[in-house]
Amino acid sequence: MMAGATDTGPVAIICGGGTFPATVAEALARQGRRAVLFPLRGFADTALVDRFPHHWIKIGQVGAFVKLAQSEGVRDVVMIGSLVRPAISQLALDWKTLLVLPKVIRAYYGGDDHLLSGVARIFEEHGFRLLGAHEVAPDILVDEGALGTHTPSDSDYVDIARGLSLLHAIGPYDVGQAAVISNNHVLALEASEGTDGMLARVAELRRAGRIRAQKGGVLVKAPKPGQDRRFDLPSIGPQTIENAEAAGLSGIAVIAGGTIVAEPQALIAAADKAGLFVIGMRDEP
Amino acid sequence: MMAGATDTGPVAIICGGGTFPATVAEALARQGRRAVLFPLRGFADTALVDRFPHHWIKIGQVGAFVKLAQSEGVRDVVMIGSLVRPAISQLALDWKTLLVLPKVIRAYYGGDDHLLSGVARIFEEHGFRLLGAHEVAPDILVDEGALGTHTPSDSDYVDIARGLSLLHAIGPYDVGQAAVISNNHVLALEASEGTDGMLARVAELRRAGRIRAQKGGVLVKAPKPGQDRRFDLPSIGPQTIENAEAAGLSGIAVIAGGTIVAEPQALIAAADKAGLFVIGMRDEP
Repeated sequence: MMAGATDTGPVAIICGGGTFPATVAEALARQGRRAVLFPLRGFADTALVDRFPHHWIKIGQVGAFVKLAQSEGVRDVVMIGSLVRPAISQLALDWKTLLVLPKVIRAYYGGDDHLLSGVARIFEEHGFRLLGAHEVAPDILVDEGALGTHTPSDSDYVDIARGLSLLHAIGPYDVGQAAVISNNHVLALEASEGTDGMLARVAELRRAGRIRAQKGGVLVKAPKPGQDRRFDLPSIGPQTIENAEAAGLSGIAVIAGGTIVAEPQALIAAADKAGLFVIGMRDEP
Repeated sequence: MMAGATDTGPVAIICGGGTFPATVAEALARQGRRAVLFPLRGFADTALVDRFPHHWIKIGQVGAFVKLAQSEGVRDVVMIGSLVRPAISQLALDWKTLLVLPKVIRAYYGGDDHLLSGVARIFEEHGFRLLGAHEVAPDILVDEGALGTHTPSDSDYVDIARGLSLLHAIGPYDVGQAAVISNNHVLALEASEGTDGMLARVAELRRAGRIRAQKGGVLVKAPKPGQDRRFDLPSIGPQTIENAEAAGLSGIAVIAGGTIVAEPQALIAAADKAGLFVIGMRDEP
């Protein structure tokens, strides 16, 4: 179910927060494909959304989405952007949603991956095709090798290997996709707090003198083994550089072909200025 | 090298922060053994230390410790209490320490377990026997079964099993010994921040609406597989109950025979009042 290079129809982008929805819409525009945004009320960024054709929706409005997307001639659907777990009060449940809700709730309690797989099935039952953002816009993925001018030291490579191995070990537990390793020591492991929250914690532990070395360490991010890559691929952007710098890290390692980069030029400029490396590692089996 | 029931000589307790040093000293007193505390300047609690015979030392004063402990007729040494990684300025390096320092530094960069194993070897070279607190005072360990009146629900047991399995998987990485699991979902994993820091994060994520369920979840703690249990056994105390309650958890699960409990009566009273279960799980191989 990979999108072929011959696909030309419009693409619906269901948008959470952050700048990734614009990154994908711009990548589609470069291919000559029309993007129609479906920003989620309370999550998506209004100023960003206004630059593209869009229809605001609320989480839970499956019926409204189906009708609007069909009227736009959309077959392919992409979901992207940050989505803090919504409170019940943020949900707008229409009739179609109520019909599929028991399925969603069952999925919800199975952990994130299952939730999103459940959502994918619902879209498919309505004639849409749910694709990963990287399938419709492959150039948003990180390539192999260093992205900027800085490169990892030998000891950084040791930390990267340890981080990737650790993330592989916790993969089956549907937990975070990131860790901070310094001098072969695990400083932080991500779960519900997200990468930004984890980096803020490392910065705070350093300020409080709770981490032995005041500088150094690598942020390592990797997709979960066996993860459905249509959703929730690890992502980095200029904000990640800023947070990694504040945490005193020496760089960031991600999986080439398995990580989305937002605003690559801005990210590279920020990394070069901060003296941080950003490297795409080959995905070892 | 287990301490036998026939050992009767005085025991040196090198004390970090918190109430555990007193817990161990009191357990020794119940056995009729004399405890001599060696509180670490900047870490140990003065009021607590004043209740027992003691000699203040600084981290790094190996020579001073050896001399004082020998003059007290001590052969068995226990290290217990919290020890935030010291800054260089907190170290007091005497001549003996400078002689062993290269060994300590090599151990330091091998991760915590290795550091403590290196420290153990140094004590042994000076004729002491470094023992686990639970070896000299077995009654400070958590027993199998519920400690208070509350017990886990079926879904709590599912979360406990998932947490123990996850901690087992990350064991080889010398990382934290605790996780918070709720509805089969990993909310937090401990690394440098410690258990109290992790519980504060869960409380904060709940306040911010970043965790779907406002209540529930289990703190699961377990020793690392293959860990040298003379050091750094997981521990719980009344403060753990308070923090778990603030994080909205339903209870705490630890490994029976592999977890130290401080102030058990106060802990049980606090757990019963807060409606939390505290359970010692059988250590599955």
